Amino acid sequence: MQNLLLIGAGRSATVLIGYILEQAGRHNFFVTVADADVTLAQQKVGSHPNGRATWLDASKPNDRRELISRHDVVVSLLPPQMHVEVAQDCVALGKHLVTASYVSKQVFRLGDEVRQRALVFMNELGLDPGIDHMSAMQRINAIRAKGGKISAFYSYTGGLVAPESDTNPWHYKFSWNPRNVVLAGQGTAQFLEDGKLKYIPYRRLFRQYRLVEIPGMGEWEVYANRDSLLYREAYGLTDIKTLFRGTVRHRGFCDAWNALVRIGLTDATFPIVDSDHLSYHDLMEAFLGISQHTGSVKDRMAKLLETEPDSPVMQKLEWLGLFSKRRIKVKDATPALILERLLLEKWALKPNDKDMVIMQHVFEYELDGRNRKLTSTLIMKGKNGVDTAMSRLVGLPLGIFVKLLLLGKISTTGVNIPTMPEVYEPVMAELEEFGVRFLEKEE
Amino acid sequence: MQNLLLIGAGRSATVLIGYILEQAGRHNFFVTVADADVTLAQQKVGSHPNGRATWLDASKPNDRRELISRHDVVVSLLPPQMHVEVAQDCVALGKHLVTASYVSKQVFRLGDEVRQRALVFMNELGLDPGIDHMSAMQRINAIRAKGGKISAFYSYTGGLVAPESDTNPWHYKFSWNPRNVVLAGQGTAQFLEDGKLKYIPYRRLFRQYRLVEIPGMGEWEVYANRDSLLYREAYGLTDIKTLFRGTVRHRGFCDAWNALVRIGLTDATFPIVDSDHLSYHDLMEAFLGISQHTGSVKDRMAKLLETEPDSPVMQKLEWLGLFSKRRIKVKDATPALILERLLLEKWALKPNDKDMVIMQHVFEYELDGRNRKLTSTLIMKGKNGVDTAMSRLVGLPLGIFVKLLLLGKISTTGVNIPTMPEVYEPVMAELEEFGVRFLEKEE
Repeated sequence: MQNLLLIGAGRSATVLIGYILEQAGRHNFFVTVADADVTLAQQKVGSHPNGRATWLDASKPNDRRELISRHDVVVSLLPPQMHVEVAQDCVALGKHLVTASYVSKQVFRLGDEVRQRALVFMNELGLDPGIDHMSAMQRINAIRAKGGKISAFYSYTGGLVAPESDTNPWHYKFSWNPRNVVLAGQGTAQFLEDGKLKYIPYRRLFRQYRLVEIPGMGEWEVYANRDSLLYREAYGLTDIKTLFRGTVRHRGFCDAWNALVRIGLTDATFPIVDSDHLSYHDLMEAFLGISQHTGSVKDRMAKLLETEPDSPVMQKLEWLGLFSKRRIKVKDATPALILERLLLEKWALKPNDKDMVIMQHVFEYELDGRNRKLTSTLIMKGKNGVDTAMSRLVGLPLGIFVKLLLLGKISTTGVNIPTMPEVYEPVMAELEEFGVRFLEKEE
Repeated sequence: MQNLLLIGAGRSATVLIGYILEQAGRHNFFVTVADADVTLAQQKVGSHPNGRATWLDASKPNDRRELISRHDVVVSLLPPQMHVEVAQDCVALGKHLVTASYVSKQVFRLGDEVRQRALVFMNELGLDPGIDHMSAMQRINAIRAKGGKISAFYSYTGGLVAPESDTNPWHYKFSWNPRNVVLAGQGTAQFLEDGKLKYIPYRRLFRQYRLVEIPGMGEWEVYANRDSLLYREAYGLTDIKTLFRGTVRHRGFCDAWNALVRIGLTDATFPIVDSDHLSYHDLMEAFLGISQHTGSVKDRMAKLLETEPDSPVMQKLEWLGLFSKRRIKVKDATPALILERLLLEKWALKPNDKDMVIMQHVFEYELDGRNRKLTSTLIMKGKNGVDTAMSRLVGLPLGIFVKLLLLGKISTTGVNIPTMPEVYEPVMAELEEFGVRFLEKEE
């Protein structure tokens, strides 16, 4: 019997645990779910005969190693910065490792050793990164197999709210980590256009968005991700002229988010002393800086943002309660944390809300002397505020891969991301059974 | 005979070494100047009978400690991050320490131990920080002594080029650390206005400047420093309503600098791969991001900056050579480093150029039921490109304080900045002999 250890039983683990327990009965696996909150782990395992819950404080090396040593495959859903230590343990103890996180430099450096020990360390196996890699590679290899030459690749992903549950002026609700949404884009976005490197610094990122048509869904805004260039090598697209990855948002979102950035509300570098003594209105006033204008804080803020007090952007800020006299609840918090807590309240998915994931790949390529364009679009909606499209699209690829690995169907050793056919073909095929279907359009 | 050890013989040490060697003959001190470049140290010491040069790699703890142990007072002109280790050595070996740098948290934490051992650790003894503290405290205590109540304190400093040597459209040349100029203001500026905290994030900092009248010099631009609030406690101004510290620049500078920030050229967080294969023109084009406009790179950049191609801002960018086909000389450099190297060339003080320092304090206070205003202004010009006002104003306060310390005239032990009369009175008095005179205006 193969033994699987799953570290971390939080929100992102639910779908994975459900899937893998079902498979465990069929294929005779045994699944241990470890978490510092053992009750949470127990709830998710339930009374399944092939599963058990156990307590683990993953920051304690001895406990962690002892537990890992008694399993064959480890899935780590810990925060990304903890993966290095788990990876080191897995190398030392000769165990396979699966994560949904980006490969850090430290984990990458373990590659040679992992390969020598014939171990499989597969990462970036969620939605983005994850399904984006696998669905893109499927199409890239299909175009190449026909003899096509790809000149441009655009890839967009968004975790959004479904139109039927879209009840606020931002047209956005959280289906995933709010902190990542608040801090998104800090730094400089890099991509490739017509053979040239392009840079967009944070301060211009939400102004320089593109409009993208999503079949049946109208136009959406897309702002550039930081990392497009990384994919040139990973996807084997060394000769490509244009490579752009971006994040999908509803029309109107970027302008309003840009206002939050301009005000200073996404700054996570300094704490506002005694922030819990301030109202949101006070905070807005503090960000007005030099008070050379007269008038209400809202009017002065509109002036600072070079907009009208009743503009769509200002309406969105007002809807968040940023001009209200309500007290801020967190003490000595950075502006970014104050914003995160406020948005968490305002942008929460309600129990009956449906989320929606949009992913689109556009390939421009030449075949038989003609320019062609392939557009692949995935649109998936959740069932409700708990069983979300996002949680399925993150959990299922992990689960399917782990099953393949436990069944001995994966031969690629080393530290990798899922760009090889032996991974993406069966994972994408099984995902289709769960309704993960890309609409293809050839032009 | 008292023994002084001066660690670091770079540009900022010249005036200090000259001053202290002169005093050494008079007061029977002996001065050791230590640097990793012993030739440089030797040049500056010359053949003075009370001085010697010695080799020291300050990163080697044993060598450093051995040298420190043979002296009574240590002056560290090392980069700020190295002061902690020197400070720890000085505590352990029972030596006094003097620096021109900001007190770091780690050095601050040594305070109790320093006081218990009756040692003097005096920091922030240059111009800004340094003369700003001392000149402000002199006036604050004078106003208080008369029974005045201070409601507002504004303080501005600028290291600038003298009008007679002002030969470029930026009206700026470097008299000090170029890196600090390029990275200035990153983060969020904080100050106090009418009893309320105010914040200006970096992206708005160079737009929201103030205009300040400097007697006899016309209007100048002042942008907010990050740290105004720190001085509330340091200066004992706990009840003050308005506290603002800023940096002085020539009219037109802030708008043009803001353009560099908007483009993304002050970003020090990512390297541009193979930057030495690019021209400045290529770099500008890369920062244009999505190429939805047609026309020259310069025209498109003007559009992005919402200005005209022949506007004063664009003229300044063009003068820097940002649209030229000249190759960038540094490899894999961050945008900030590329900019720093370019400015170093363009904004260099020539051998006969004079620099200029402007410092102004404005106090608003109530005395005998009447509102008053005191404006103190220091304007000082250098002699040439080497003997600058900046180097004198940084080196002399250090030198004068070290002399006082060696003569046993300082009784304040612990980790401090020069806010106490026994320091600022004699230092400011002697600085006057060197022409450091504030013009006072009472209203």
